[in-house]
Amino acid sequence: MAHRPLACVILAAGKGTRMKSDLPKVLHRVAGRPMVGHVLAAVKALDPDHVVVVVGPGMDSVAAAVAPYPTAVQQEQRGTADAVRAAFGLLEGFTGDVVVLYGDTPLVTPDTLRAMVAARRQANDPAVVVLGMRPDDPGAYGRLILNARGGLEKIVEHLDASAEERAVTLCNAGLMAFDGARMFDLIGRVGNSNAKNEFYLTDVVQIARVSGMACAVVEAAPAEVVGVNSRAELSEVERLMQRRLRKAAMDNGATLCDPDSTLFSHDTRLGRDVVVGAHVVFGPGVVVEDGVEIKPFCHLEQTRVERGAVIGPFARLRPGAAIGPDAHIGNFVEIKNATVEAGAKVNHLSYIGDARVGSKANIGAGTITCNYDGFGKYHTDIGAGAFIGSNSALVAPVAIGDGAIVGAGSVVTAAVEGDALAVSRATQKSYAGWAKRFRERKRAEKAAKA
Amino acid sequence: MAHRPLACVILAAGKGTRMKSDLPKVLHRVAGRPMVGHVLAAVKALDPDHVVVVVGPGMDSVAAAVAPYPTAVQQEQRGTADAVRAAFGLLEGFTGDVVVLYGDTPLVTPDTLRAMVAARRQANDPAVVVLGMRPDDPGAYGRLILNARGGLEKIVEHLDASAEERAVTLCNAGLMAFDGARMFDLIGRVGNSNAKNEFYLTDVVQIARVSGMACAVVEAAPAEVVGVNSRAELSEVERLMQRRLRKAAMDNGATLCDPDSTLFSHDTRLGRDVVVGAHVVFGPGVVVEDGVEIKPFCHLEQTRVERGAVIGPFARLRPGAAIGPDAHIGNFVEIKNATVEAGAKVNHLSYIGDARVGSKANIGAGTITCNYDGFGKYHTDIGAGAFIGSNSALVAPVAIGDGAIVGAGSVVTAAVEGDALAVSRATQKSYAGWAKRFRERKRAEKAAKA
Amino acid sequence: MAHRPLACVILAAGKGTRMKSDLPKVLHRVAGRPMVGHVLAAVKALDPDHVVVVVGPGMDSVAAAVAPYPTAVQQEQRGTADAVRAAFGLLEGFTGDVVVLYGDTPLVTPDTLRAMVAARRQANDPAVVVLGMRPDDPGAYGRLILNARGGLEKIVEHLDASAEERAVTLCNAGLMAFDGARMFDLIGRVGNSNAKNEFYLTDVVQIARVSGMACAVVEAAPAEVVGVNSRAELSEVERLMQRRLRKAAMDNGATLCDPDSTLFSHDTRLGRDVVVGAHVVFGPGVVVEDGVEIKPFCHLEQTRVERGAVIGPFARLRPGAAIGPDAHIGNFVEIKNATVEAGAKVNHLSYIGDARVGSKANIGAGTITCNYDGFGKYHTDIGAGAFIGSNSALVAPVAIGDGAIVGAGSVVTAAVEGDALAVSRATQKSYAGWAKRFRERKRAEKAAKA
Repeated sequence: MAHRPLACVILAAGKGTRMKSDLPKVLHRVAGRPMVGHVLAAVKALDPDHVVVVVGPGMDSVAAAVAPYPTAVQQEQRGTADAVRAAFGLLEGFTGDVVVLYGDTPLVTPDTLRAMVAARRQANDPAVVVLGMRPDDPGAYGRLILNARGGLEKIVEHLDASAEERAVTLCNAGLMAFDGARMFDLIGRVGNSNAKNEFYLTDVVQIARVSGMACAVVEAAPAEVVGVNSRAELSEVERLMQRRLRKAAMDNGATLCDPDSTLFSHDTRLGRDVVVGAHVVFGPGVVVEDGVEIKPFCHLEQTRVERGAVIGPFARLRPGAAIGPDAHIGNFVEIKNATVEAGAKVNHLSYIGDARVGSKANIGAGTITCNYDGFGKYHTDIGAGAFIGSNSALVAPVAIGDGAIVGAGSVVTAAVEGDALAVSRATQKSYAGWAKRFRERKRAEKAAKA
Repeated sequence: MAHRPLACVILAAGKGTRMKSDLPKVLHRVAGRPMVGHVLAAVKALDPDHVVVVVGPGMDSVAAAVAPYPTAVQQEQRGTADAVRAAFGLLEGFTGDVVVLYGDTPLVTPDTLRAMVAARRQANDPAVVVLGMRPDDPGAYGRLILNARGGLEKIVEHLDASAEERAVTLCNAGLMAFDGARMFDLIGRVGNSNAKNEFYLTDVVQIARVSGMACAVVEAAPAEVVGVNSRAELSEVERLMQRRLRKAAMDNGATLCDPDSTLFSHDTRLGRDVVVGAHVVFGPGVVVEDGVEIKPFCHLEQTRVERGAVIGPFARLRPGAAIGPDAHIGNFVEIKNATVEAGAKVNHLSYIGDARVGSKANIGAGTITCNYDGFGKYHTDIGAGAFIGSNSALVAPVAIGDGAIVGAGSVVTAAVEGDALAVSRATQKSYAGWAKRFRERKRAEKAAKA
Repeated sequence: MAHRPLACVILAAGKGTRMKSDLPKVLHRVAGRPMVGHVLAAVKALDPDHVVVVVGPGMDSVAAAVAPYPTAVQQEQRGTADAVRAAFGLLEGFTGDVVVLYGDTPLVTPDTLRAMVAARRQANDPAVVVLGMRPDDPGAYGRLILNARGGLEKIVEHLDASAEERAVTLCNAGLMAFDGARMFDLIGRVGNSNAKNEFYLTDVVQIARVSGMACAVVEAAPAEVVGVNSRAELSEVERLMQRRLRKAAMDNGATLCDPDSTLFSHDTRLGRDVVVGAHVVFGPGVVVEDGVEIKPFCHLEQTRVERGAVIGPFARLRPGAAIGPDAHIGNFVEIKNATVEAGAKVNHLSYIGDARVGSKANIGAGTITCNYDGFGKYHTDIGAGAFIGSNSALVAPVAIGDGAIVGAGSVVTAAVEGDALAVSRATQKSYAGWAKRFRERKRAEKAAKA
C-alpha cells in the first residue's frame, strides 16, 4: 500500500494564566519531561512526515524545547481554529492526514492517535475524526451526537444542549484528525460569530456535515485526555502518569514496596526482580539492571546501576554515576560522574565525584574526593582492592594504586603506589586532667556570670 | 452601625481517653499547631471582644497554650451545656453574640463562623443558631428539623427520630451561636434528666422554641467539622488540613511534584514558581520566595529561603537558617542559625551552625563548623568568596576572611586573613608494600584460627 | 473437653509466573515477611498439631523458609485437590480437623481460621467448611449457594451459573476446613474431567453433598483473602497490610503524622505517645518505647529505642542499635551494632558502629568510628560524659575514658584516659595573599586557553 503522509499539529500557544507562572504552560514538567515533550513522544511513535507546534508570540523557550520540529506563531489568542490556521503556512499543499493535538494533554497515547488515523482512513472517508470520551461526570463538556450509522452528526455545546442531548455520555475530548485535502477549506470556513468572538475548531463538524461529508468518532479513556490549566490539574496529570509508570514497572517484574511513594521519570528502566523500597525518586535517565535492590530514601538521576548492586538507604546517585555489579552504595553517600566498579563498597557518608572506584575497593565512612578547586574539576582514580580509611580527603587529581591502603583521617595529595600504605597524620597527644580542668573553669565562668 | 460585641467560648475540657495520651487532647498537633490553636486562629479572624477557653481540672498546659486568652475550669464532665456554664463567670453581663466552638474541631473556617454570627443578627433575631452539615452518611447524628419558614424547629437525636426524621440529611454539627442576652437563661434551664445525667447544649433549641424564640441553621461542609477523639481521627483531620494547604499552595503558583508527599505547616508560605519535589516536610515558620527549587527529601523549619535558591535533595534547614538568593544547599547538609549569603554553595555533607557564609563562598564537602564546646555556642564567620576545602573543621569562634582558601582536611582554630591560604596538615608519608604485608599477616592469622 | 487435633495444610506450590521473578511467589515479602510467613503466623495462633506446606519441585528456598514445618512436594501443577493430596503422606491416619490455606493470601487472620474450625465442629458435623466473602464486584468468582437450613449446597463456577445464581453475592474465597476422618476419601474422589484436566478442591462440596454430608460456610471480609499473582497484587496486599498495621499503632496510642508515608514491618512495636513523623520506614525487629519522637525521614531496623529519645530527621538505625532513654540521634547519622546510653547525643553526620557511647556523652558532627580494617570489626568504647570534637576518627579498637575530650579533627588510635584531652592535629599555617595569587594564576590560565 502506498504511504499516506501524516502531519501532526500540536497547539501550545495557551498562556496558562491560571498556572501563575513565568514558564509557558506546556513546559511545565510531568514525570520529568515538559508536557509538550510527552505529546511529541506520542506523536513520534506514529512516525509522522510533518510536525508543527503552534506557539504564542515570544514563546522562544517552547520553540527551543520542541526543536528540531518547527513552530508556527499564533499572534493572538482567537480560538482553536485560529491556532490551527497558524500552522497552515508550514503545511501548504499537504494532502495526507492531519492530527490536531494539545500541548497540555500529555497523557494521550500512540494507540489512541493510531486509532484516530485509522478511523480517518476508513472506507467512508470521513473529513473529520473527533476524539470522544465518557467521563464520570459529563458536566459541561460538549456532547457528541451520533447518527444512525454511528457517524458523528454534531457536537453540541453543553449550554446549547437539549435535555435529551445532555443525557448523552459521549463527550468531546478535543483532539481531531482531518483529511488534509479538505481541512484547509473546512477550517477556513469557521467563523467567530459567538459570545467570545473566537474561532472554534469544533465548528468544522457542522461545516463538514452541511457539505455532506462524513465525520467519525474514536473513543479514549477520559484519563488520557485530562488537560492542564492549573497547578492542581498539573499534579493530577502527574498522578495519572505516575500510576501508569508504576504499573508498567510492576508488570515488568519489579517490586515496588510502596508504589505511591515511588516517583518515576518518563524514561526510567527497571529490570526484573529489582526491589524498590519506599520513598525513592527517579530523575531522568536511570537504568537499573536485574536483581538490584534500591532501599528507601534514594534519589537517582542519569545513572546506570548494574545487576545485583545494593543502593541506599539515603543514597544519591547523580548524573554520570555508574554502579557496577554487586557494588554497594550506602547511606548519606553521593556519587557524581563516577564509576564504582564490581563489588566495590561506598557505604557511609561519602562524596565520590569525578572518580573511578576500582573493583572490590572499600571506601571508608566520611571519605571525600576533593574534585574542585574553585576553577576546574579533577579526577580521582582508586585502584582495585584499595582500602581508603575513614574521614580521608583525596585531593584530585590523584591516583591510589591497586591494593593500597590510606590511613584514616589522611589528606592524600600525591599518588599512592599499589600495595603501599599512605598516611598523613599528626601524632596523638594527651593532656591528663585537661578536660576536667576545662569543665571546672567553664562552670566557674558560668557561676560568675549568674 | 454600632459595634455589636462578640464572644467566643471554646470547649476544650474533654479528656480524650481514646487518644491514649498524656497530652490533653486539644494540644495534639495538626499541621504543626495544637488543635485548639487552629480553633483560636479561626476565632481571631473575627476579632472577638472576648474569648474563653473551657478546660478540665489540672489542664495547665492547655491554659498555657491558649494564653493570653483566659480559661474557665469545668470541674466535672457533665455535658456540653455544663461546660458552657463554666464560662459564665467570665462573661457576666455580656449581651453581644456568643459563638460556642470545640477545641477538637480544628478545621472550622472563619467564613463559617462569620456566617453563624450573621445569621444570629438577622432580622428575625434568633436566640440560637446551630451549625448544620450534610454528611455522606448521616448515621447516628442528630437531625435538624426545619419549620416551614426555614427556621430550626428542633434537634432530634438519632435514637429518638422517626423514620421520616431519619430521612432528613441535615445534621447537627455541634457549633452554636447565641444571643448573649438570652443565652444565660436558656442554658441555665437545660436539665439532665436523661440516660447519662448530662446537660446537653442541644436542649437549648427546644427551650428556646417553647418560649417562642426563633432558632436558625447555617450549613457547613462536613469536612469542616470533623472532630477528633482518636489518633486515627487525628490523622484524618491532618489529611484534610494538608489537602487544604496543598491546594492553597498550588493555587498560589507553586508546583508540588507529588502533593501527597508534601507536608505543610499551618503557616508555610511559598512564592510563585516555587517547585517542591517529592517527599518534602515543612515545619513551622518557613518562608520560600519566588523561583526557589526544593528538591526531594528536604526538611525545613523556621527558615527563610530567598529567590532562586536551590535546596536539596536531602537538605535540612533548621531554625534560624537564612538562605540568600541563588544560594545552593546540597545533599546531607544541615544549616542551623546561619546565614548563607547570595550565590554561596554548601553542596555536600556539611554542618553549618551559628555562622555566616559570605556571598559566593564555596564550602567543600564534609565541612563542619565546630560551634559547641559542651558549654556555649560560638560563631563562625566565612567571608565572601572564601573557599573552604573538604573535610575541614572550623573551630568557633573563628573568622575566615574574604577570598581566603582553607586547605582540605584542615582544622582552623585561628582567624584566617582575607586572600590568605590556611592549612593544617601533616605530611603525607608512604610505606611501600605495607598494605600487601598487612593483608598477608591478616590472612595468616585467619588461617591459623581456622 | 478432650483436645481435638488440628492440622493445617498450606498450598505454596504455585510458580507465580506472572510475578516474573526468580523468587518463588510465596517468598515475596509483605511488611518485611515472606507471604507464607504471614500465613504460618496466622496458623500458629491456633496452635495446630500438624502443619504441612505443599511446595513445587525444587522449591528448597520455600522449604528452608518454613522450617521446621515439613513440606510435601506436588510434582506437577494439577490443581488444588492434587496439591492437598501431596500432603496426605504426612497426615496419614489423621482424624482431627484440617484447614487448607494458601501461601499467597497473607492477610488471613487467626480469628477467621478459628471461626472455620468452630464451624467444622458444630453439632451438624459438616464434612467441609468453605470460606466465603462478599466482594464489591463478585465478577467471575464462584458463587456459594446455600440451602434452606443455611448450609452450603453447592459451589457454582461463574461460567456455569444461572442468572439467579450469579445474583448471589456470597463468593468462594478458597480456604476450606475438613473433617479429617472424611477428607482423604472426599478429596480422593475428586476427578479431572474438565477443560483444564485439573483436580479442583471445590469439587469436594458436591461429592460430600451427594453422599449426604453437611457442608457449611464461614464469611470473611474480602480484604482478608486477597491473593497475589502479580507484583501489582503484591503491592495491593502490602497496602492493605500497612493499613492494618497503621490502625493498630494509632489505636495503641501512637501519633502517625502522615500514616500513608509510614511503612511498618509486621513486628514493629510502638509505645504510647510515640510520635512518628512523615516518611519513616520500619524494618523488622524494631521496638520503640513510650514518648519517643521519630522525626521525618528515618529508617530503623533491628533496633530498640528507649523512652523519651529523639530520633532524626534523616537518621538510620541499623541492626543492633540500642538507643537509651532521652538520647538524641540527629541528621545524617548511622548507628550500627552500638549502644547509645541515656542522654547521649549523636546529632550530625556521624557513623557509630560496633561501639558504646556512654551516658551524656556528646559526639561532634562528622565523627566516624573506624570499626573495620578490611578483615575484622573492632569495638570503640566512649565513656560517660566524653566530648568528641567534630570530624574526628576513632580507630577501633580504642577506648575514650569518662569525661575525656577529643579535639576536633583528631585521629584517635590510642586509648584516651578519663578526663584527659586528646588531640592529633598539625599546626595551622597561613600564607598571606596565596589565595589571591592562585586565583590570578587560574584566571590567566583560563584566559590563555580561550
